[in-house]
Amino acid sequence: MIRVPFQEVQSVLVRVFTRLGLDQEGATACAGIFAEASRDGVASHGINRVPRFVSYIKSGVVDVKARAERASAPGPAWEQWDGRRGPGPINAIMCMARAIELSRTSGVGAVGLRNTNHWMRGGAYGWQAVEQGLLGICWTNTSPNLPPWGGRESRIGNNPLIIAVPSAAGGVVLDMSMSQFSYGRMETAQHRGERLPVAGGYDKDGHLTDDPGAILETQRLLPIGFWKGSGLSLLLDLVAALLSGGLTTSAIGREVAETGLSQVFIAFDLERAMSPASRDALISAALDWTSSSAPDEGARSRIMFPGQRALGARRDSMEHGVPVDESIWTEVLAFDR
Amino acid sequence: MIRVPFQEVQSVLVRVFTRLGLDQEGATACAGIFAEASRDGVASHGINRVPRFVSYIKSGVVDVKARAERASAPGPAWEQWDGRRGPGPINAIMCMARAIELSRTSGVGAVGLRNTNHWMRGGAYGWQAVEQGLLGICWTNTSPNLPPWGGRESRIGNNPLIIAVPSAAGGVVLDMSMSQFSYGRMETAQHRGERLPVAGGYDKDGHLTDDPGAILETQRLLPIGFWKGSGLSLLLDLVAALLSGGLTTSAIGREVAETGLSQVFIAFDLERAMSPASRDALISAALDWTSSSAPDEGARSRIMFPGQRALGARRDSMEHGVPVDESIWTEVLAFDR
Repeated sequence: MIRVPFQEVQSVLVRVFTRLGLDQEGATACAGIFAEASRDGVASHGINRVPRFVSYIKSGVVDVKARAERASAPGPAWEQWDGRRGPGPINAIMCMARAIELSRTSGVGAVGLRNTNHWMRGGAYGWQAVEQGLLGICWTNTSPNLPPWGGRESRIGNNPLIIAVPSAAGGVVLDMSMSQFSYGRMETAQHRGERLPVAGGYDKDGHLTDDPGAILETQRLLPIGFWKGSGLSLLLDLVAALLSGGLTTSAIGREVAETGLSQVFIAFDLERAMSPASRDALISAALDWTSSSAPDEGARSRIMFPGQRALGARRDSMEHGVPVDESIWTEVLAFDR
Repeated sequence: MIRVPFQEVQSVLVRVFTRLGLDQEGATACAGIFAEASRDGVASHGINRVPRFVSYIKSGVVDVKARAERASAPGPAWEQWDGRRGPGPINAIMCMARAIELSRTSGVGAVGLRNTNHWMRGGAYGWQAVEQGLLGICWTNTSPNLPPWGGRESRIGNNPLIIAVPSAAGGVVLDMSMSQFSYGRMETAQHRGERLPVAGGYDKDGHLTDDPGAILETQRLLPIGFWKGSGLSLLLDLVAALLSGGLTTSAIGREVAETGLSQVFIAFDLERAMSPASRDALISAALDWTSSSAPDEGARSRIMFPGQRALGARRDSMEHGVPVDESIWTEVLAFDR
């Protein structure tokens, strides 16, 4: 692991994406999403994901020239956008920005985005809302990568859900997928010869296991809360398709790659109801009380809040540089030629 | 267990609630929420919960004369209502109805309800939306009844989340709390001398267990997905308080009873974007494909969808009568004197 100054990561990625045909504005936006994910400690959806993004552009799955466009407005506070299979991060930024804009006049704004590509780190669009003082909720569907409860074949998606509220510390931002662990997390544990902290899926005999290799072999990941996460995943998928007029996970499964995704972006203009100071007081009181619980006896960490780890990693990265896997960085630099 | 015709359950409850001081309209609405919960197989939040509701009225926690009133409108599509500590089911019906009304002009409508009481079965307000062809999302916060991840004392709530989409079969309606099991579910298992199907909390030595009695003793329930459900619970609580201008779980914990709750109701007027026939086709295709997975090797049931069990129980209850615990029914009838 090496450390690269944030600005250097950002400018290398802008050059890489510009060479691939993105315009200056689009390349800057995309670079920001990847660089900020690594900065915030989410390398799996940051720099580590750049090679796959590049391959999706080269194979034509991602059309670098296409941008999301408004397709219809079912009402003044709800719009449907067509992503035209353009770069997922750019489309997602545009649609959260549009949800924010709608909320400025309606109190709440909602955008359903169809026909888009992977947005990389979903939390980014939650942070986008809270950095402007708004409350943001968004989620995406995915390719089928998770078996439904009662089944052994992947028929639902891990459909990350983001709920973000602004706070004095910067934000409380939940970014969670519907599987207990991501593929990236399991690959890392396998690579290090570690067990998962709790069961994360099934082995080939159909038993729950914390052995990441056994789960990667069957690809039978466990939804959070067993039947509950399975149901939540299904509903997030249906709502994303209905609000955007787009594809469900079942239809995405017939695409040649993970594309044609449906996403939802909702923003509430909090300042129309409450001053930032009252908001911060409410949130601080809740967080203080929550963390006043006696710690459990496990070796687990102290009580943390969603987004807290990201804010800590961000401070560290800005001071010491963004942690970057050396071999992946070499690969990324090779695109900049 | 005895069977009582649905209409009889409904009319007994109307009389009980009228005697307690509710007006005819309010008694009918409350009776519907309780009777329909039992009809749909959710007796824990139906008839079984009537005695506690009655005691809350008698002790003055629930003010039978109070009704939710609009307190402010941060925007044309988002309103804040004050429940004035009236009957939770009536306030919730009113606020979902208002969210639906707002969505008829704005596409999406959102209501934050503060200062209300327990809404009983949250799924009811999802069904309320889908029965009118709308997409509904709602949730509530609660008293602290769940330890946050990393802690051993209850500092967060199990905060049920409901996501409901209309469908040809009647609806796909998810109604899930953030704990792996409810207290009611664990008490039933303990009563029957059964283990839980998966670990549901911690015993007194801090070990995960599927022994319901051991968990009821510590009251250390497990959030779905460990740290994930803990984070989701916290965010649902914060958002409910922010959108309603109401209390968080931390403040509700200082009340003498479970009261002063904050809730969120969101509706999308789907028919402004899509015909019911297209909607049904999209949902049927997704459900058919999901259930086409090979079944797992466990003794678990076939692949079911959220709401499917409720629809089955409903048909059965309407044909054979609502299943009612005889001793509880005797207790309810005693109120009707």
